[in-house]
Amino acid sequence: MQDLDQYTVTDATLAQMAQTPNPRLREIMDAAVRHLHAFAREVSLTPAEWLAGMKFLTAVGHACTPFRQEFILLSDVLGLSSLVNAMHDARAGEDGTQTSLLGPFYREAAPSHALGESIAGLSSGEEMVLFGNVLDAAGRGVPHASVQVWQTNAEGLYDLQLHEPEQMDMRGCFACDGSGAYHFRTIRPRGYMIPMDGPVGGLVQAQRRHGYRPAHIHFLIGAPGHRELVTALYLADDAHIDSDTVFGVSQALVVRPSLDLAGSPRPDLASIRYDFRLSRTADGGSGRVGADPSKILEPAP
Amino acid sequence: MQDLDQYTVTDATLAQMAQTPNPRLREIMDAAVRHLHAFAREVSLTPAEWLAGMKFLTAVGHACTPFRQEFILLSDVLGLSSLVNAMHDARAGEDGTQTSLLGPFYREAAPSHALGESIAGLSSGEEMVLFGNVLDAAGRGVPHASVQVWQTNAEGLYDLQLHEPEQMDMRGCFACDGSGAYHFRTIRPRGYMIPMDGPVGGLVQAQRRHGYRPAHIHFLIGAPGHRELVTALYLADDAHIDSDTVFGVSQALVVRPSLDLAGSPRPDLASIRYDFRLSRTADGGSGRVGADPSKILEPAP
Repeated sequence: MQDLDQYTVTDATLAQMAQTPNPRLREIMDAAVRHLHAFAREVSLTPAEWLAGMKFLTAVGHACTPFRQEFILLSDVLGLSSLVNAMHDARAGEDGTQTSLLGPFYREAAPSHALGESIAGLSSGEEMVLFGNVLDAAGRGVPHASVQVWQTNAEGLYDLQLHEPEQMDMRGCFACDGSGAYHFRTIRPRGYMIPMDGPVGGLVQAQRRHGYRPAHIHFLIGAPGHRELVTALYLADDAHIDSDTVFGVSQALVVRPSLDLAGSPRPDLASIRYDFRLSRTADGGSGRVGADPSKILEPAP
Repeated sequence: MQDLDQYTVTDATLAQMAQTPNPRLREIMDAAVRHLHAFAREVSLTPAEWLAGMKFLTAVGHACTPFRQEFILLSDVLGLSSLVNAMHDARAGEDGTQTSLLGPFYREAAPSHALGESIAGLSSGEEMVLFGNVLDAAGRGVPHASVQVWQTNAEGLYDLQLHEPEQMDMRGCFACDGSGAYHFRTIRPRGYMIPMDGPVGGLVQAQRRHGYRPAHIHFLIGAPGHRELVTALYLADDAHIDSDTVFGVSQALVVRPSLDLAGSPRPDLASIRYDFRLSRTADGGSGRVGADPSKILEPAP
């Protein structure tokens, strides 16, 4: 019998996992254990600190409900979600619109709207219009592409954060016309602090971070034969445009609403024009499936 | 504004956390983010895999109850708990008994017993006796040292896994006599599979690991002025003595019960003699405080 020390325990763990039949699971868990152990050795983690970590992760798990996904929030504030997106974009090459965070507020089964309608059913604020095209990798319009949109209201809250989270608002699905064009109305979203009443908020406060995300509108865009696009547009004039707590902003996704914009279906309203470009189907989807907080609570496969 | 790629997002995350006032929290989170990101880059984690990870961690959190600590179990099967113990022992020097895993079945407020009594109240099996001394770093007996014991019954189950987990059995607290000697009776514990009905069990099965721990008896030993000792004794004749799923066994903790053992208070029973040696108080305790599953559910500090 070998007595395990802080180095040999890593070898012993990897040896026990070496018979994993799924090669990708083996590869991922092998790397996870090596990096987890290297982390613990680097900081010389004490039992009391380890226990604080166990308590923190347990609290994160218990904060996850059908209307809230605290682990995705943790991934977001640690930069992991943004990193996964960046690698996903890099694999797809340069031809598609950059992705941005799905975030914890996506919901499947958002209501369908006709082009031109407003997603602000129960909320009021400064009216805006968004319009443009969904294009393929060669720059041609993608007929009837599906465009899902969700955002905060003028108070910086998603419907999931309101008193009746079952009721949907400030989200909807549109189908582009035969040339790939879309337009819809909404109200100006407001930037917001990530939820600060849970364990992730506690961490962000202990790190003296402001906790704000700049105002943005989420998009999930798809069409058969194209890679699904998860992205967001960020409003340039938000005070936190350069310091997003979850690292979702990139220059190409920053927009500035303006009046009298050429081509706007409603030039009397603050208008944003944005053309989205879909990549060809590449490495197995966007990761969207099941990210609805109410769906992620199923047991892991 | 800098557009973030898979490398610069790490710098951006570390920069946002750089104002953390608590230097140890800053150090730990800085290392955690670097290693987490390095892991994701090494395996080129896809959005779908990231989402599977989020689901898995959420399921682990939801499996944590006042009677079960699935995150500690995860730490155990990944070798992290054993690694933290090994570093803890190394910092304490060579003078104390090796530590072993606290495990997820420790409970505060176990019943007190007089020396010589049995901890098997509701369970039956092969009777055994354990005896020996609690010694200080210089080899002198520690008068009235506190000895807490917990173990499985003859079916390999802890009281927490029985139908009425509120009812305690197969655990107890003893006070050594004035010379530091202890003795108590119990029944032979049985090795067991870790709980396989949760997400951690699912992982262990997907890795084709047997999931067994060899039979053992847990100890938590303390006395004022000494470092608290969390350890366990392992029975030599268990078939899994060399392949513990949670990496808790070390040679110095392996014991072999025998009849007619010299000095046994009950030489007619299978007897184990073991002297425990406490280190001087060193780096802030054993990490035991609050590891009771029913206590770990409080919000993180």
